Amino acid sequence: MSTALPLSVQAGVGLPVTGVRLAVAAAGVRYKDREDLVLIELAEGGTAAAVFTRNQFCAAPVVVAKEHLAKDPVRYLLINSGNANAGTGDAGMRAASESCQLVATLAGCRVSQVLPFSTGVIGEDLPLSPFEKSMPDLISRLAENAWEQAARAIMTTDTRPKFCSVEIQLSAGKVTLTGMSKGSGMIRPDMATMLAYLATDAQVEPALLQSMLDEAVAPSFNSITVDGDTSTNDACVLLASGVSGVSVEAGSADAQLLQAGITQACMYLAREIVRDGEGATKLVEVAVEGAFSESDARAVAFTIAHSPLVKTALFASDPNWGRILAAVGRAGIEGMDINAVTISLDDVVIVRNGGRDPAYREEDGQRVFGQEAFQILVELGMGDAVARVLTCDFSYDYVKINAEYRS
Amino acid sequence: MSTALPLSVQAGVGLPVTGVRLAVAAAGVRYKDREDLVLIELAEGGTAAAVFTRNQFCAAPVVVAKEHLAKDPVRYLLINSGNANAGTGDAGMRAASESCQLVATLAGCRVSQVLPFSTGVIGEDLPLSPFEKSMPDLISRLAENAWEQAARAIMTTDTRPKFCSVEIQLSAGKVTLTGMSKGSGMIRPDMATMLAYLATDAQVEPALLQSMLDEAVAPSFNSITVDGDTSTNDACVLLASGVSGVSVEAGSADAQLLQAGITQACMYLAREIVRDGEGATKLVEVAVEGAFSESDARAVAFTIAHSPLVKTALFASDPNWGRILAAVGRAGIEGMDINAVTISLDDVVIVRNGGRDPAYREEDGQRVFGQEAFQILVELGMGDAVARVLTCDFSYDYVKINAEYRS
Repeated sequence: MSTALPLSVQAGVGLPVTGVRLAVAAAGVRYKDREDLVLIELAEGGTAAAVFTRNQFCAAPVVVAKEHLAKDPVRYLLINSGNANAGTGDAGMRAASESCQLVATLAGCRVSQVLPFSTGVIGEDLPLSPFEKSMPDLISRLAENAWEQAARAIMTTDTRPKFCSVEIQLSAGKVTLTGMSKGSGMIRPDMATMLAYLATDAQVEPALLQSMLDEAVAPSFNSITVDGDTSTNDACVLLASGVSGVSVEAGSADAQLLQAGITQACMYLAREIVRDGEGATKLVEVAVEGAFSESDARAVAFTIAHSPLVKTALFASDPNWGRILAAVGRAGIEGMDINAVTISLDDVVIVRNGGRDPAYREEDGQRVFGQEAFQILVELGMGDAVARVLTCDFSYDYVKINAEYRS
Repeated sequence: MSTALPLSVQAGVGLPVTGVRLAVAAAGVRYKDREDLVLIELAEGGTAAAVFTRNQFCAAPVVVAKEHLAKDPVRYLLINSGNANAGTGDAGMRAASESCQLVATLAGCRVSQVLPFSTGVIGEDLPLSPFEKSMPDLISRLAENAWEQAARAIMTTDTRPKFCSVEIQLSAGKVTLTGMSKGSGMIRPDMATMLAYLATDAQVEPALLQSMLDEAVAPSFNSITVDGDTSTNDACVLLASGVSGVSVEAGSADAQLLQAGITQACMYLAREIVRDGEGATKLVEVAVEGAFSESDARAVAFTIAHSPLVKTALFASDPNWGRILAAVGRAGIEGMDINAVTISLDDVVIVRNGGRDPAYREEDGQRVFGQEAFQILVELGMGDAVARVLTCDFSYDYVKINAEYRS
């Protein structure tokens, strides 16, 4: 696949980032006997950048986190799984604020230096007592080597933790970037995915850090889909502790290197979300080339990536190109000539000039569709714009998970 | 449900329409031992109106039917199931034209007076020999009382035929309207549904007939969805034989009555398609009120109606209003205040001011969701525009049907 990552991204590795400490607790927000609460501490003087869901129905913690972020430098991130604190009205806003206040009181910072995050069931009141009970312990156990535990504690329907590290050699020294994400359903991020946190010990001023995060999110979290449903709680946060003493200035070669590391880590974490999509058995990149505009290319790619008929064909390992072509045709692109469209499955051309390629053999298509990961490439023959979207298949288990789990 | 139909639509009844004859044959296009070919004859002097898919990848028969319709008065409709003749290139265009020529030669009309329609598998060549073999028999057996057999012969993954009649008393006499439709998957019509045919013995000039069909299609076939996938072969045809001698003039009270009959018949046939949606166990009307514009209202309604998370919750009979509210929030409506949103399930208010209604009790929501048919009403509190969309749930059987059937 063309999204193959360079070796520098260490999958399933959570290297400590100096200046960033984490702790987890089994607070019992909803789950019994598993960790569901995470506190992340950023060293004084560190910087933070964040992107949030563009769903207009955003959860109380998203509202509170945005307010706090605008007011004061970030010191703590407080994340619970099991309850989204969404659709909970004024009580939800109070719960989000009060959970931050618990951290601020014990840690000796301002309440607006704490950002709250929640993921889980929508529409149920967030109880405060699990936070009260666990907070002293959480703060006392903060440590730099707890990324994997944190990645596990933020899971909901995820079947495995998602985390990685990148070490980047800059001109003034080496910096480390570690990140984690969670998400499996209600995935069609429109700004950021469900929840993702990354941290580096580089020193980066806030505006540059935000622009780096924005650039990294576009081809990663904003280019994946499981079911087309944008969550109410999406958030992605990038922290820079600066503790390494390695400063990165806008426009420098170092900034380009750090950007590459951040983007690659985000792409790994985003890809892991799709690979762990609810009920998913396949990971498919839909690439669209030759569009007039990027928005056209993305419209075609997402129409294919969301089509229940394409997704059930993926599940069945049936190279049913008619369903792909039908999705291209209904994507609403002005001036498209369906007779100029070419579709390939990895290296196998299946559709040429809007119809089945005369040289296509069914067994070649089936060989590609039988794989766990492959690419569907659509060439529109209209212009130069491209888009790439990651998606997964639609299986019995997607229905089972979502008919049984109240998210 | 508010789409309850007046008693005048006779469900599952196919009254003869004078001046319109039908015949069916087991031609073996794809299916063995079942009827799969339909010929419909319109009396000389009758008029026809049609709407077709707006999928840019439209099938050969759609292209040919549009050409023929523009050229000459319609005399015959030729419909096969089992093969969509889509994505078949020049060979497909030839097959569509030649099948019309077979009718024209035997019936003694021009080839452009025959419209071809196909539904079934995409991307396989349409064999002409089944048409050649069956045509003499088809033409010799044309009869006015074959609507039910025709409704069965055009089925693919449908589990039951869909047809109805309306008798309408106009000032100059009674006219009859009978219609049939097919469709179960790849249903999100954008002009018309998969295939639907209606005929009346009223006398209506072509421009009026077309405007009546356009008006009837908007709230019926263009307001339903099963899986969001617009077909390549959608078509809806309305014939008026004029044989009753009852003439209908534009702007008359009779035109209003006939329009009501056509619209109600289309709504019945569209509703039957959703009720027979692939794997469907529930029929749900999503009504959106209080939008600024109809396009906003439709965007919200279709976002809910397409959401895999909402559809699996419907299957599970779980009144998971958080998923509905999340879909409202991601519909991309400018200026929406999520705190002004009210959501009701039939007569049960579940969300008020963007959060759970304090008076809501879970057992009330479950009572509504446990029914086979109900309404989800979303009030946006922004303006006066409304939209209504019919949808169904997403079940294990949807995955099963589409993982096993190559459409």
